[in-house]
Amino acid sequence: MAGNSFGTLFRFTTWGESHGPAIGCVVDGVPPRLPLAESEIQHWLDRRRPGQSKFTTQRREPDQVKILSGVFEGQTTGAPVALLIENVDQRSKDYGPIKDQFRPGHADYTYQVKYGIRDYRGGGRASARETALRVAAGAIARKILGPEIGIRGALIQIGGDHIERDAWDWNEVERNPFWCPDARAAARWETLLLDIRKRGSSVGAVVEVVASGVPAGLGEPVYDKLDADLAKAMMSINAVKGVEIGAGFGAAALSGEANADEMRMGNEGRPIFLSNQAGGILGGISSGQDVVVRFAVKPTSSILTPRRSVDRFGRDVEVVTKGRHDPCVGIRAVPVGEAMMAVVLADHLLRQRALGGPTT
Amino acid sequence: MAGNSFGTLFRFTTWGESHGPAIGCVVDGVPPRLPLAESEIQHWLDRRRPGQSKFTTQRREPDQVKILSGVFEGQTTGAPVALLIENVDQRSKDYGPIKDQFRPGHADYTYQVKYGIRDYRGGGRASARETALRVAAGAIARKILGPEIGIRGALIQIGGDHIERDAWDWNEVERNPFWCPDARAAARWETLLLDIRKRGSSVGAVVEVVASGVPAGLGEPVYDKLDADLAKAMMSINAVKGVEIGAGFGAAALSGEANADEMRMGNEGRPIFLSNQAGGILGGISSGQDVVVRFAVKPTSSILTPRRSVDRFGRDVEVVTKGRHDPCVGIRAVPVGEAMMAVVLADHLLRQRALGGPTT
Amino acid sequence: MAGNSFGTLFRFTTWGESHGPAIGCVVDGVPPRLPLAESEIQHWLDRRRPGQSKFTTQRREPDQVKILSGVFEGQTTGAPVALLIENVDQRSKDYGPIKDQFRPGHADYTYQVKYGIRDYRGGGRASARETALRVAAGAIARKILGPEIGIRGALIQIGGDHIERDAWDWNEVERNPFWCPDARAAARWETLLLDIRKRGSSVGAVVEVVASGVPAGLGEPVYDKLDADLAKAMMSINAVKGVEIGAGFGAAALSGEANADEMRMGNEGRPIFLSNQAGGILGGISSGQDVVVRFAVKPTSSILTPRRSVDRFGRDVEVVTKGRHDPCVGIRAVPVGEAMMAVVLADHLLRQRALGGPTT
Amino acid sequence: MAGNSFGTLFRFTTWGESHGPAIGCVVDGVPPRLPLAESEIQHWLDRRRPGQSKFTTQRREPDQVKILSGVFEGQTTGAPVALLIENVDQRSKDYGPIKDQFRPGHADYTYQVKYGIRDYRGGGRASARETALRVAAGAIARKILGPEIGIRGALIQIGGDHIERDAWDWNEVERNPFWCPDARAAARWETLLLDIRKRGSSVGAVVEVVASGVPAGLGEPVYDKLDADLAKAMMSINAVKGVEIGAGFGAAALSGEANADEMRMGNEGRPIFLSNQAGGILGGISSGQDVVVRFAVKPTSSILTPRRSVDRFGRDVEVVTKGRHDPCVGIRAVPVGEAMMAVVLADHLLRQRALGGPTT
Repeated sequence: MAGNSFGTLFRFTTWGESHGPAIGCVVDGVPPRLPLAESEIQHWLDRRRPGQSKFTTQRREPDQVKILSGVFEGQTTGAPVALLIENVDQRSKDYGPIKDQFRPGHADYTYQVKYGIRDYRGGGRASARETALRVAAGAIARKILGPEIGIRGALIQIGGDHIERDAWDWNEVERNPFWCPDARAAARWETLLLDIRKRGSSVGAVVEVVASGVPAGLGEPVYDKLDADLAKAMMSINAVKGVEIGAGFGAAALSGEANADEMRMGNEGRPIFLSNQAGGILGGISSGQDVVVRFAVKPTSSILTPRRSVDRFGRDVEVVTKGRHDPCVGIRAVPVGEAMMAVVLADHLLRQRALGGPTT
Repeated sequence: MAGNSFGTLFRFTTWGESHGPAIGCVVDGVPPRLPLAESEIQHWLDRRRPGQSKFTTQRREPDQVKILSGVFEGQTTGAPVALLIENVDQRSKDYGPIKDQFRPGHADYTYQVKYGIRDYRGGGRASARETALRVAAGAIARKILGPEIGIRGALIQIGGDHIERDAWDWNEVERNPFWCPDARAAARWETLLLDIRKRGSSVGAVVEVVASGVPAGLGEPVYDKLDADLAKAMMSINAVKGVEIGAGFGAAALSGEANADEMRMGNEGRPIFLSNQAGGILGGISSGQDVVVRFAVKPTSSILTPRRSVDRFGRDVEVVTKGRHDPCVGIRAVPVGEAMMAVVLADHLLRQRALGGPTT
Repeated sequence: MAGNSFGTLFRFTTWGESHGPAIGCVVDGVPPRLPLAESEIQHWLDRRRPGQSKFTTQRREPDQVKILSGVFEGQTTGAPVALLIENVDQRSKDYGPIKDQFRPGHADYTYQVKYGIRDYRGGGRASARETALRVAAGAIARKILGPEIGIRGALIQIGGDHIERDAWDWNEVERNPFWCPDARAAARWETLLLDIRKRGSSVGAVVEVVASGVPAGLGEPVYDKLDADLAKAMMSINAVKGVEIGAGFGAAALSGEANADEMRMGNEGRPIFLSNQAGGILGGISSGQDVVVRFAVKPTSSILTPRRSVDRFGRDVEVVTKGRHDPCVGIRAVPVGEAMMAVVLADHLLRQRALGGPTT
Repeated sequence: MAGNSFGTLFRFTTWGESHGPAIGCVVDGVPPRLPLAESEIQHWLDRRRPGQSKFTTQRREPDQVKILSGVFEGQTTGAPVALLIENVDQRSKDYGPIKDQFRPGHADYTYQVKYGIRDYRGGGRASARETALRVAAGAIARKILGPEIGIRGALIQIGGDHIERDAWDWNEVERNPFWCPDARAAARWETLLLDIRKRGSSVGAVVEVVASGVPAGLGEPVYDKLDADLAKAMMSINAVKGVEIGAGFGAAALSGEANADEMRMGNEGRPIFLSNQAGGILGGISSGQDVVVRFAVKPTSSILTPRRSVDRFGRDVEVVTKGRHDPCVGIRAVPVGEAMMAVVLADHLLRQRALGGPTT
């Protein structure tokens, strides 16, 4: 209950600090007899790994995952699946003033106040490194969901620059270093980010994650609505400041006529929705439409410009963050958002099974 | 785990349908020896109650709360506090076609798919009537938080019309039927809503809730971040489609320099933040600044214009929603948002106590 | 988390004090479309109700249960089922010295220390009256389990007097006021208890609960073993001091040869066990054999003999408990033990469904 | 929720199989700034380790624990503490018929039925090896409890042979290989166990664990009573078949006069109890007396005598268990029982803090 676990039936717990010997994850509630290999988890980790382009941090972590339990002869056994990733690239260094200073926009001050002690090396527990384990747990969740449920994420905004919705091409997402579905936007962002990196600054972004093939009926009213759990899942990702479903904040400006998705009977005995303002969720329960979530990622506070702050001795200081940084941490959040979508859906799929509701 | 409970240490469970005999709430984890009277809960319920202005539903429920347990000689005993509100205004009527039709934008279809049965009377469990119990639980949460922590909500947008931030006046909030902090916006909204009501349409809104006096240190990394729990809390309110903290989605467009709140040492031995883009939360932990949450409420789908839909026999139908409706359900969401802020903070305050961290 | 809830997927929360206006229960996680009527719950409550024989307390509570939510047109809807029982026989009286004295063997002192406040009327929250709600929740659990799973309890020991195992006759259980399966023991107990009642004393008892037809495969290793959850369930019943499964404490004296139940292949494709020392549970998972639990109930501390104690002002006092008492509270624990067996099995049945394991 | 976690606020999750690469444990909810070194955990592991006398299994595991997270500069940080123990002595061998046979009295059959797959190597997840992690988690729990709370266990019965209560000497416990507090009993047991080992048989035992210095007020009515959580904790240990508190099953034979512990006012402003039939718990809440728990451990089913069973192909077979075994697994259960006492008390101490109740 100290908050390092997520989910109810499909439930994982993560541990580890940025500069400790390793980070890891225990996934409990995995149904038995799922084929599961390290390489399947590694596949998703490789997508997230930093150091892959000039637009993400140059920390080079192989992020090689090991399965330590819960898999026997290539299949899950129903026992908890423990995953471990060793920390390789912990540059031994003098942390210098960072040790005692509170970097603005970081969790340094709040950790110090809350715990009275702080592992200052690379952000400790607050490091984005933790998100690798979300991706690993998400890989197992995808196995539970099966191939019928597809989960894809994309970056739809960097700074003030949006993609064109009409230009959306999922194939494009794999072709640029931004997971951008709009080729022209991707080209603009390249210029934009090079400039930001040169200035030692940073910029925010918006990620959209879409799950297709989700059976109608997932989600538990009233407090464990599917959208409520998705909101918690996404907001728990480092640096996320906003989450929306379907029309989201745009729904505030709509009329009831424009917002309510009309239905017509389809050929397969299920209704067809004529629009998807709801983002695939009505009353907290999936409708069978695509589940659409967006979240905003703030710009990293690790920038070269000196910033005013205080230290733990109560002195005013100027902070300059040196070292390896992402000009736009939102980019790396795309696979993390996909993973969190997967774990929420897998959890609700198991919960749905328990009640005997439809799961296809 | 079927989702009708909220919180970990301060934990409440609600029950009841719109047109059943009563609705109720059990609040567990209430510390002992808190003075608590029905009138204190009633105070907050009265703020939320529909039928108070021409801009909210004309359903007239006195919403008279009774405390059935957990209070002895005017104080809480540590036992669960059970609250009960009888349903009075259940107009006996012929539900007619609504019984079998799925209203677009409502949870009718998803409940039917999930459960294979649906209490169609007034929305059943999916009715906004459930939010009265959130307000009641919030009233108890406020007692735990004490008078030092103030929680106030306001409506800052109706449809496409925003307030002016510079005109914000908390006193104004109590003077108009919209909880609007900007007198001029309130005047415009009166005209706007009269027109919408006349047309039998509806419109969305944005609510902002601010908690002041929150001690630094509340919130549990990594998955039970204070902002993650607030996101879940707000997204679980009926009709909410988006949640943001501090700068929220606006943070995506900011540079790292503009986003990170600088600090200077204050006179009381605590840092002073020079801005509040973070909305009072860093790394999932409260910083001592105001905690600022906003959420978007979609327009109600109960409108007079006929809408295309299907019924449970698989037939295409036209749906017209008659009866008592809110032109803008976002208005009534203001006290509900305040209550959800209160229950999240109370829960994290108790969690903080358990770990021995600071609570002032 | 303040402990008034039980179960994970089939989860109920109880509230109410002995002398408050009512007691109640919210059952969450009930699958939809189960036929459920008040009379079905009332049936089990009537079995437990005090005042039915001269061997149980003469408090006369009709214990009339009302379903306030979660049932529509005779079937569960998937929404939480709220149950309410009004307290009728709260004799208005002067509580006199009991108000400030700590009765030995009761929870008076520990409640006072823990909470600093105590509802002294009839034991408040610690009253055995709470167990009526366990029986009510158990009635719903039985509906989930279905008729294939039979749960029966019996009293097998009062004071130092045991039944003869060879004389066990389930039909006998309904014929005497003790739920005793051995007619000769029942006859002896009648004499025994009349004497104890005359002396204003009390005596302990042992209850055995047997569940037959339980599918193999229920229970989750490692911490949520079926027997671990049963142990918690039974030990949480008022006055219970010991719980055992199968051979129980007797297993300590057995050799490995005598203890391990041998198997032979049966005709229906399932193994047949040649004995049941394990009580139907191996490695925390049901084996398909009868699940056998026993628990010891201490004698009530409400007796006429004056006892040495202290009061809340720190003074030594003599306590005499007047009023209505059970000479053997163990008798009324039989239906409660059955109910707790039912709720544990129902919870694990739903958990089993979630993982896709066998449920028949 | 698949049952590999224990506790609410002090919550640990274990993983790993007997013959996998490692086993491990994640302890969440550890308060910050507790001094914690690997050696402190190792101390307790060494007490439990097999291979220390001729009366326990000859498997030789160094059980060297590593702290992988949550400790910085010798103190806990509030982050989850991950512990890892490598499996060293996994003799590579041909599992032969065991692979497909269900050993009587073991969990082989139930795991196969539940999961449809089984890691047959050394018992897999059902191995007593998992209890090393309980001991490790217990070591951290002891740090939370502090030196004022002492937890000691003893073996009080092997087979049918009991200790003499009057001969109880805690110092004796460390002097013999049985944790036996009665020197004469220890001498008898040596002969007894040598004989049992020679015959390739096994025998059960009873363990008693006593916690002294426990503050009054721990435990949450109604379902999370301190004794209910202890019952679950102890019953979840491998091979345990019964749990009792204080007088336990003996309470059934007592009169109310003999059972209720009388009180007199002590010199330190707290009552003194004149006996401890209650085992230190009244109404589910600690009274300040010693908390006394006993549990029965069945004889291991791994014996040399051929036993009748079936295999997973539905054939009748004879099973003989070869390899390394404990003639009395109850011996090694002593440190495990101590650890489970520690984790339950630590959890309830944190819960008590949250509610603001007394913790000393």
